[in-house]
Amino acid sequence: MSNVLDLTCELIRRRSVTPDDAGCQALIADRLRAAGFGIEQLPFGDVRNLWATHGSGGAPVLMLLGHTDVVPAGPREDWQTDPFEPVVRDGVLYGRGAADMKGSVAAMVCALEAFVAAYPDHDGTVALLLTSDEEGEAIHGVRSVAECFRATAQRVDYCLVGEPSSSRTVGDTVKVGRRGSLSGALTVHGVQGHVAYPDKADNPIHRFAPALLELSQRQWDAGSADFPPTRFQVSNIAAGTGANNVIPGALEVQFNLRFSTAWTSAALRAEIESVLQRHGLRFDLRWHVSGEPFLTAPGALRDAVRDELLDRLGQAPEESTVGGTSDGRFIAPLGAEVVELGPVNASIHKVDECVRVDALDVLADCYAGIARRLLVTAEAVAPGSEPSSPT
Amino acid sequence: MSNVLDLTCELIRRRSVTPDDAGCQALIADRLRAAGFGIEQLPFGDVRNLWATHGSGGAPVLMLLGHTDVVPAGPREDWQTDPFEPVVRDGVLYGRGAADMKGSVAAMVCALEAFVAAYPDHDGTVALLLTSDEEGEAIHGVRSVAECFRATAQRVDYCLVGEPSSSRTVGDTVKVGRRGSLSGALTVHGVQGHVAYPDKADNPIHRFAPALLELSQRQWDAGSADFPPTRFQVSNIAAGTGANNVIPGALEVQFNLRFSTAWTSAALRAEIESVLQRHGLRFDLRWHVSGEPFLTAPGALRDAVRDELLDRLGQAPEESTVGGTSDGRFIAPLGAEVVELGPVNASIHKVDECVRVDALDVLADCYAGIARRLLVTAEAVAPGSEPSSPT
Ligand SMILES: [Zn+2]
Ligand SMILES: [Zn+2]
Repeated sequence: MSNVLDLTCELIRRRSVTPDDAGCQALIADRLRAAGFGIEQLPFGDVRNLWATHGSGGAPVLMLLGHTDVVPAGPREDWQTDPFEPVVRDGVLYGRGAADMKGSVAAMVCALEAFVAAYPDHDGTVALLLTSDEEGEAIHGVRSVAECFRATAQRVDYCLVGEPSSSRTVGDTVKVGRRGSLSGALTVHGVQGHVAYPDKADNPIHRFAPALLELSQRQWDAGSADFPPTRFQVSNIAAGTGANNVIPGALEVQFNLRFSTAWTSAALRAEIESVLQRHGLRFDLRWHVSGEPFLTAPGALRDAVRDELLDRLGQAPEESTVGGTSDGRFIAPLGAEVVELGPVNASIHKVDECVRVDALDVLADCYAGIARRLLVTAEAVAPGSEPSSPT
Repeated sequence: MSNVLDLTCELIRRRSVTPDDAGCQALIADRLRAAGFGIEQLPFGDVRNLWATHGSGGAPVLMLLGHTDVVPAGPREDWQTDPFEPVVRDGVLYGRGAADMKGSVAAMVCALEAFVAAYPDHDGTVALLLTSDEEGEAIHGVRSVAECFRATAQRVDYCLVGEPSSSRTVGDTVKVGRRGSLSGALTVHGVQGHVAYPDKADNPIHRFAPALLELSQRQWDAGSADFPPTRFQVSNIAAGTGANNVIPGALEVQFNLRFSTAWTSAALRAEIESVLQRHGLRFDLRWHVSGEPFLTAPGALRDAVRDELLDRLGQAPEESTVGGTSDGRFIAPLGAEVVELGPVNASIHKVDECVRVDALDVLADCYAGIARRLLVTAEAVAPGSEPSSPT
């Protein structure tokens, strides 16, 4: 068994369902401390965050970013094998977190160990940030750490996120940005009454109909080379007492927008509120911004990732911004270039979550190779001194 | 205490929550048998129906129509006094069914006794139809009896319904028709998916928006002198998993139409289905017709009711069609003129349901007087031979 596989299995055995870290970070801290890293705990609320650094402390700062928490496994009997007892079948490792993202975390740790062993005097700083609150509220995880970094002027030049970015084979796709995500919880007020006396009532479902039509049919933007179009989606709608002879007094609507850098959450909020007001609705509206959109422009990090994957896999990755959100959204506003590179995402958050064992080694090699490209000047790399594979 | 009050109290003490008759009809059958009526039971399913007739059996047939069942009382402690223990305070009788409609039923029974005593050789037929399934499903009550009447060619010329028709004082309003009521249970099908990948999903809420707007804003008809405009109302709407990142796979909508004689339920159904089809929806739709609309044109029954109320109360009643449905909707299609005359409806289906004691006597006098106007030819009424008040 490879070093990366061993560590992935050790992490899977720890039942670190959000926000419980279950000892994952302590295990990793011990290993990185032994490799010469400085270790800092950054706890916020009941969330554990680990900050491990190696090098000068100065620029350029390359941060590897991951999370040790996993989503719940659901009923044991839905899985072919125990989700917290890793097992390899036919070259595939099964277990909760195998793909999202204990495999990436293990690959990062092994890559860092190999990198600092090979290049103890690398340029700048190489670092690992781990949180145990990515899958949950994500309030006390990287969001809080990023606020702390901003307060302490901790710079981050490059951020490589281990989220499962790949589609069919490891490294075929990387994420170079993410759409923003804005949620609204809307209550449209009417006046309850009997259907036989509609003039004494005011049906909030009917009131909302024109606004619903406008919001759902609107083209918010045309999209761009980097982003699909911004989209509005109603996820939940509910009104009524259950009785068929009562006009309800209120309508509850939850909606979400995934939006490109053509918008900010503030501009979207103002726009939607003005639509609701223009339709004469009486309403309450609570907003939740999950993340502003970000886009990493072509530059050193995108170059390093693409060149590394091209050299190692023979094919340049697709550079995409589709999909959900990631903790990269908190790091990008610090001024960092952010790219996500991780395993195939097909099984994440599902039963029988899995990752190919050979993908774990590929990831470790890539993470180490990207660090070399960013933190080791050409003249410092003697021929034949490429770091040995961490496997 | 008056005869009508006594009988109302006896009926209230019988806990005849739908469809339980609790002995009400047996009590009434005994009294009307003693008064010379022919008594028939017309049971359907677990519902008791009583059919009592007096006279030739031929035309004209005046039927008084009532129900012995009541809606549940709810928690005892919500009532000032036991809902099934009638009590008179300040000239008002309290108890479940006092207004809807044991008071009317008692008034009908007392009126019939007095009428046949005074006019044993009246024209045609006077009859009483009682059901114990008006407040519930109303399948095995007057609906079934009417089917039976149609099958046996039992004619009904005039039908006087005891439902609480009055607004402020007894007799101020009578109903000369009712709107129809049509309910639909609609499922709009979409494709469930993640809000981040809207192109792989099909949001049924968005799909339904244009149809909802059209249906809710449409003017179905302009109304008429007799009917308010036909109205469409969504009573319940629901979609969503609760999660804000999931586009739901289906939308459930319940709606109701109260419609005038400008429509039939069949025409409305066809129209709504064509709207949904025109908007390209994939949907399932279950229909329930609570009743077709009916309108009693000016004629002998409306004249008799209006003249009786004018003579007795000094004021002609408002002749209205607003409000819910009544069992009159099943009798009108037999070709009968149908008018509803009963007590004030303010307290029905509520706690502390009540009726004024003097209204009970007014109703008994009116029912008897209307029977005299319709079934006693002028020359048969000797001066001074008006039936004595049944009180
Ligand atoms: Zn993840
Ligand atoms: Zn009733």
